[in-house]
Amino acid sequence: MIGEKIKSILIDKDNQLVKSADQVAVVGTKNRLNHALLILTTDKYSLVPVLDEKSRMQGLISMPSIMQAIMDIEDVHFEKLGKINVEDIMDKDFPFVYEDFELENVLHMLVNHAFITVIDEERIFKGIITRSEILKGTNRIAHEFERIYDVREKTTTDSIK
Amino acid sequence: MIGEKIKSILIDKDNQLVKSADQVAVVGTKNRLNHALLILTTDKYSLVPVLDEKSRMQGLISMPSIMQAIMDIEDVHFEKLGKINVEDIMDKDFPFVYEDFELENVLHMLVNHAFITVIDEERIFKGIITRSEILKGTNRIAHEFERIYDVREKTTTDSIK
Repeated sequence: MIGEKIKSILIDKDNQLVKSADQVAVVGTKNRLNHALLILTTDKYSLVPVLDEKSRMQGLISMPSIMQAIMDIEDVHFEKLGKINVEDIMDKDFPFVYEDFELENVLHMLVNHAFITVIDEERIFKGIITRSEILKGTNRIAHEFERIYDVREKTTTDSIK
Repeated sequence: MIGEKIKSILIDKDNQLVKSADQVAVVGTKNRLNHALLILTTDKYSLVPVLDEKSRMQGLISMPSIMQAIMDIEDVHFEKLGKINVEDIMDKDFPFVYEDFELENVLHMLVNHAFITVIDEERIFKGIITRSEILKGTNRIAHEFERIYDVREKTTTDSIK
């Protein structure tokens, strides 16, 4: 359980925690790697969601995974970029939550993932939650919490209650 | 100013906030882009520090910046990878703090940067502070703060004091 007062400052009511799908660069399962590489070069994220033709979340793809797919011990085979589909090398084990997510779970997952994808029951991609948004909340807590609230060590009596 | 009680839980005394230089993948200013690309493919970070021959921090390099350097409107020129030096395309405007940094500054900078580099007065690279470490602290605050401390709305009298 997250403390209610901490939660109220961690999450800014005026701001969307979820960056909605229409603001996120994505690639399609049937796209070739050269297209994905272009998206990843122009986008500011180092990995992007992969959606199928029905906008369902299917995986994540990153530049390192593309490079690994076209490399062997001896050389990098750039000519393979136009021959391999994104779905053949995407990471299908992506972190996700549903729209009615618990903030608690998202906080845990963000320790190990740059962003968490939000999907609905049909797996339709709804958006992402980024580390940056949570870090804005951490800044608010660091600066405002003890200014707004009176914080005292719990007495033994308090702890027993 | 960061609240003292918040700070004590945000920073875990048993863990190093700074990941030390010997644990961080780096590239040299005189390395060619193909070497940097290899490091970025095998490393888990999407950008890495660039050091000169005296281990001084000089910039950051990322996969997108390498791709941009070898692309023009018509094509990607992979043959350029072995001809361009890292120092020619690295981002020299990198976020850094000195070893006696204020946590407050680091928190602010991490909203917009994946990690902050730590350097000494001679610009020697000492390590990085990652979003992941701060997010571990955010998790501790979310779960433990109101369990450990008694938190109350400040009364008017408190605010005037």
